[in-house]
Amino acid sequence: MTHAHPFDQALALEATAAHEFRGQSHAGYWNMVGPFGGITAATLLQALLQHPQRLGDPLSLTVNFAGAVSEGPFTVQAVPVRTNRSTQHWTLTLLQVGPDGAPVVATTGTAVTAVRRETWSMADTPMPDVPSPGTLPAVEPAGAMAWLQRYEMRPVSGVIPQVWDGGGDHSLSQLWMRDAPERALDFPALTALADVFFPRVWLRRARHVPAGTVSLTVYYHADAAHLAATGTGFVLGQARAQEFRNGFFDQTAQLWNEAGTLLATSHQIVYYKE
Amino acid sequence: MTHAHPFDQALALEATAAHEFRGQSHAGYWNMVGPFGGITAATLLQALLQHPQRLGDPLSLTVNFAGAVSEGPFTVQAVPVRTNRSTQHWTLTLLQVGPDGAPVVATTGTAVTAVRRETWSMADTPMPDVPSPGTLPAVEPAGAMAWLQRYEMRPVSGVIPQVWDGGGDHSLSQLWMRDAPERALDFPALTALADVFFPRVWLRRARHVPAGTVSLTVYYHADAAHLAATGTGFVLGQARAQEFRNGFFDQTAQLWNEAGTLLATSHQIVYYKE
Repeated sequence: MTHAHPFDQALALEATAAHEFRGQSHAGYWNMVGPFGGITAATLLQALLQHPQRLGDPLSLTVNFAGAVSEGPFTVQAVPVRTNRSTQHWTLTLLQVGPDGAPVVATTGTAVTAVRRETWSMADTPMPDVPSPGTLPAVEPAGAMAWLQRYEMRPVSGVIPQVWDGGGDHSLSQLWMRDAPERALDFPALTALADVFFPRVWLRRARHVPAGTVSLTVYYHADAAHLAATGTGFVLGQARAQEFRNGFFDQTAQLWNEAGTLLATSHQIVYYKE
Repeated sequence: MTHAHPFDQALALEATAAHEFRGQSHAGYWNMVGPFGGITAATLLQALLQHPQRLGDPLSLTVNFAGAVSEGPFTVQAVPVRTNRSTQHWTLTLLQVGPDGAPVVATTGTAVTAVRRETWSMADTPMPDVPSPGTLPAVEPAGAMAWLQRYEMRPVSGVIPQVWDGGGDHSLSQLWMRDAPERALDFPALTALADVFFPRVWLRRARHVPAGTVSLTVYYHADAAHLAATGTGFVLGQARAQEFRNGFFDQTAQLWNEAGTLLATSHQIVYYKE
């Protein structure tokens, strides 16, 4: 008898109608007031990956966190609204039933999938020169949030401030990370990894303020062969903010595998208080 | 008698039904096989700005170019799918009538608007030290594409290669830009400016290959006061790619006003051939 990995449990979706899939929130990926945003983004992507009309692999995904996902069942609508020769455009919605029985939109999104073929290629953002993951200690998950225990994180730089003294002076973090327990990387897992970084505002200010992602975009540079080459190995994530302004900051992020291949780039805009 | 600015002509939308607006493609912003992507993105934003139920100002916008917009009329659907206390989530669609009379989705998108209030803020990406726009010559629009004549561009670095000899070695461009004729900056105009950069693959390879934006995201850091302070002045745009891989590259961009305020950050994923 085998037990599914928590990530696969969380992403289990059942097709219930045309373009509709039924899932269930997973306690193992719980954050403060709802699931870890990365698991929600991965779930939206999983819906289109399971869709019988899908063309190609993920190229881009944008997920907007309209409201917290509640504990319990949800419906994902994944609709291929336009299919071209080599690209396909998707709209994505995560719905739950509200207290009054009416559907509530918790998450919206769009995605593009594409059939890619080999062309001239060029890595224009070399992986930073950092110690290999084996030489760095894994951090013990701090706090009670379940989802932190679903990742092995080996920070390189820009760790969560140990002292909240308002003394921050930059917003750059680098860390090696992978699923815990180990799991071979696929597009949904890569999507979730893009959202692992703690809020940049905590680092920049060395102040612990409420914060939450409003919109997340992932651009996929990896294909199936790059994912297979990554396997259960570590991914180096690098994230920094560009601007903190009146309640929202942006984050740009890059994710490389241990071989130095840039698997994905990602961006998000994040709410913060005060 | 006054004549509307071409940008305002292009963005003229008439409300025709709940969440629906009617517009018309504008010859003055024509690109190769359809309108300049920036004007399409600005049009989607304009629809939600005109929506009677709008809450707050633009915070983020993602536009997916599913297919070329044809010459003629179009319908924009802008639907506020969820309104929270201080944020509102939108789905956006641009439709045209196909040859067989059925609606065709040309563009999809999502947006978030937000009521922002003053908080601790920090510019974490200083404007690069570049010559002021008055000291730099404006480039004559090259080629027959009408939309290029709608912008005054004063390049700082990373101009379009003068010789297509395959000798490129970086993907970074910086240029001062503004509407031509001058027009006070607003959110739609800022949105269009985020898409002005020529394809990074041309610069990186010094090779002229077919290329086109697939998905564009803009994060707005400016509020109405920042836009008013910018007025008809120049905006410094900076763009670079992070990865070119198997038919698609990504672009990250920043837009500052002359005072050095970061007005917006932007990202796109772009198709290229060969």
